[in-house]
Amino acid sequence: MKKLIGNAVVGQSGGPTAAINATLAGVIRGVLENVGDGAIKTLYGMRNGVEGLLEERLVNLNELFADEKNIDMLEHTPAAALGSCRKKLPKAGENDAVYEKLLAIFKKYNIRYFFYIGGNDSMDTVAKLSAYTKGHDYEMCIMGVPKTIDNDLVVTDHTPGFGSAAKYIAVTMQEIIRDCAVYTTPAVTIVEIMGRDAGWLTAAAGIGLAANGIVPDLIYLPERAFNKEEFFEDVRAVLAKHPNVVIAVSEGIRFADGTYVCEGFGIASTDAFGHKQLSGTGKALEHAVKAELGCKVRSVELNISQRCGAHIASATDLAESVTVGRAAVKAASEGVTREMMIIVRDSTKPYTYHVDHSDVSKIANQIKEVPAEFINARANHITKECAEYLLPLIAGEGTPAYAQGLPQFFIID
Amino acid sequence: MKKLIGNAVVGQSGGPTAAINATLAGVIRGVLENVGDGAIKTLYGMRNGVEGLLEERLVNLNELFADEKNIDMLEHTPAAALGSCRKKLPKAGENDAVYEKLLAIFKKYNIRYFFYIGGNDSMDTVAKLSAYTKGHDYEMCIMGVPKTIDNDLVVTDHTPGFGSAAKYIAVTMQEIIRDCAVYTTPAVTIVEIMGRDAGWLTAAAGIGLAANGIVPDLIYLPERAFNKEEFFEDVRAVLAKHPNVVIAVSEGIRFADGTYVCEGFGIASTDAFGHKQLSGTGKALEHAVKAELGCKVRSVELNISQRCGAHIASATDLAESVTVGRAAVKAASEGVTREMMIIVRDSTKPYTYHVDHSDVSKIANQIKEVPAEFINARANHITKECAEYLLPLIAGEGTPAYAQGLPQFFIID
Repeated sequence: MKKLIGNAVVGQSGGPTAAINATLAGVIRGVLENVGDGAIKTLYGMRNGVEGLLEERLVNLNELFADEKNIDMLEHTPAAALGSCRKKLPKAGENDAVYEKLLAIFKKYNIRYFFYIGGNDSMDTVAKLSAYTKGHDYEMCIMGVPKTIDNDLVVTDHTPGFGSAAKYIAVTMQEIIRDCAVYTTPAVTIVEIMGRDAGWLTAAAGIGLAANGIVPDLIYLPERAFNKEEFFEDVRAVLAKHPNVVIAVSEGIRFADGTYVCEGFGIASTDAFGHKQLSGTGKALEHAVKAELGCKVRSVELNISQRCGAHIASATDLAESVTVGRAAVKAASEGVTREMMIIVRDSTKPYTYHVDHSDVSKIANQIKEVPAEFINARANHITKECAEYLLPLIAGEGTPAYAQGLPQFFIID
Repeated sequence: MKKLIGNAVVGQSGGPTAAINATLAGVIRGVLENVGDGAIKTLYGMRNGVEGLLEERLVNLNELFADEKNIDMLEHTPAAALGSCRKKLPKAGENDAVYEKLLAIFKKYNIRYFFYIGGNDSMDTVAKLSAYTKGHDYEMCIMGVPKTIDNDLVVTDHTPGFGSAAKYIAVTMQEIIRDCAVYTTPAVTIVEIMGRDAGWLTAAAGIGLAANGIVPDLIYLPERAFNKEEFFEDVRAVLAKHPNVVIAVSEGIRFADGTYVCEGFGIASTDAFGHKQLSGTGKALEHAVKAELGCKVRSVELNISQRCGAHIASATDLAESVTVGRAAVKAASEGVTREMMIIVRDSTKPYTYHVDHSDVSKIANQIKEVPAEFINARANHITKECAEYLLPLIAGEGTPAYAQGLPQFFIID
């Protein structure tokens, strides 16, 4: 493939993370440092992903980030500075109008490079756009750049964004365990963690297994069926040992019949307006344990802070995110297209990795689960092997700069 | 009063905070540095407050903290390292058996100094013990050392522990506002914040008013009656301006008739002191807004992380907490008794303060609310004056030391 020379566009898509802007910063650095050796002239940012691109809501990033200080600040800014979207493209061949519109916009702005930073759904967009542009005479380079706190993309060892969320969870869990240790009255604390159908984030609650040994008493991942009776047995066994039980559960745990735990307990509560209230997984288990064991129970949902907690980001994750973004520019300028950037782990002790790329069409719409050897036999905790695998990803504190006690974030108006 | 020479006991009581161990560290430093000039020989720590004291569960803190490094680590450890309790003492005169038992223990261990670190309920314990020991021939010095994230103790300008919780909330709010800004679809995010019947912590969500200008759209404190119709009007008005509405609400907001907003939804349970246990205010409002406006709504409960978030503690708060603890030892050794240590603010710009003490019997069982001039006329936000008052309390990041990516805490087994 001959070297393409033109402009580039970069977008962010899917749920926010503490590191997606670090990846954007990496793409910007790659262009401004000219790692593509003249391939890319102007880098445009699409506001709100392809949704904004279709409305030609573009911003000139070369100009916006001419001052290095802005890039530094961007690296520590949580969520998606360009805005995000959850737009799903139609299958190429079914409804080509949207692709024709996109192509017209690419031609209008002389865009030859398309970088899309996102997770599973975003890689679907990248794969579809790759498929559409493949047969076309307007040559383009389409690149996926991974990002998801869920860590559920296949092929790549892990995803940028995961390490920071994992660090938030691991650190917060250390604090919650201290908080729960102060009273002598028996009490159960259930911490609900994100991750949809993959248990990686919940597993991060147990990272202490490979470090200081301080971990929740019980950890339940969605990769294994949740057995109510065994769960009550597990809780009773811990209560027999000490009064302060701490449990980490994934939001996505399900019973053997496939029903989500948050649906299956059928907690009958109605709100002030007479509407039936749908509880979260933690809340459902809180009610179940209270009914079964009669002791004090509370549930804590880490909620969106676990994905936007830039103040306790993993320095390793931020550095890798920048590296992956920069490498995407380099690879694209060398003719790589229709691929997603991946992280390849070379060694765990000491932790080393390199960046590569892989066919995006084989990555999109797949889910990488926590493997069997990372979960204990009873399916109520992770293995030490799992903790050792996760530990290097939370190394270092990627703290933002502070002014008057508040973090300094870069905002694109 | 002649100088008492003997041993001392220190305890922690009530809910955990990120700074209560810094105050304990201050008391330990005071004793080890001999600020009392020989008054105190051995400092005992009572496990689980007066509950453990009554069982003679004591730990020799001079020995445990002989190594300075342990004190440094303790300063950054969240929750109560000695353990806590919620034990309420009977009124002196009603049932003196418990006081007689305490006195026997004081005599047995030659304890002449009693330091109790806690909030409103703990000051009740201090006041009662003060009243009991006053007429007694066994002379003792009884000191209250303030701690509460709620900042609801009277007389003192603010309480140790508040600044760190306020910083957690202020920083997290900056991140949540970024997280909420990424989509173009109208959405309302309701963040529920602790504080019981005082709005100080919820006010901290608006600290940006005095700094970078980035604040939630609406803030509702428990000091003003919550009007559902005005609330819907407020939300509609913000939605007319931009799609991403962020609202901070106190867990303790009530309607004009005194009913808690969460009561139609949550469970009205009470703690050992007869206080209503509040939860579900955010969830109740989430359902109400969804029913009324039909747009996407979610609620986020900051939950216990806001009180144990040592990783984003306020450096100012930690330093003050140590200072107050040390000053309590100094004051007690000079004959001060039956008083609570207080912080007196000398100036806001620049922020300066000094430590004093005040009659604990006039502090216990009172609640300091957010004053009228700190709340705007519509009662849906704080004033700039309020933000300026709060801002110095979150200055600086009091971060713990990290090992292998995890914070290092000091644990008393």
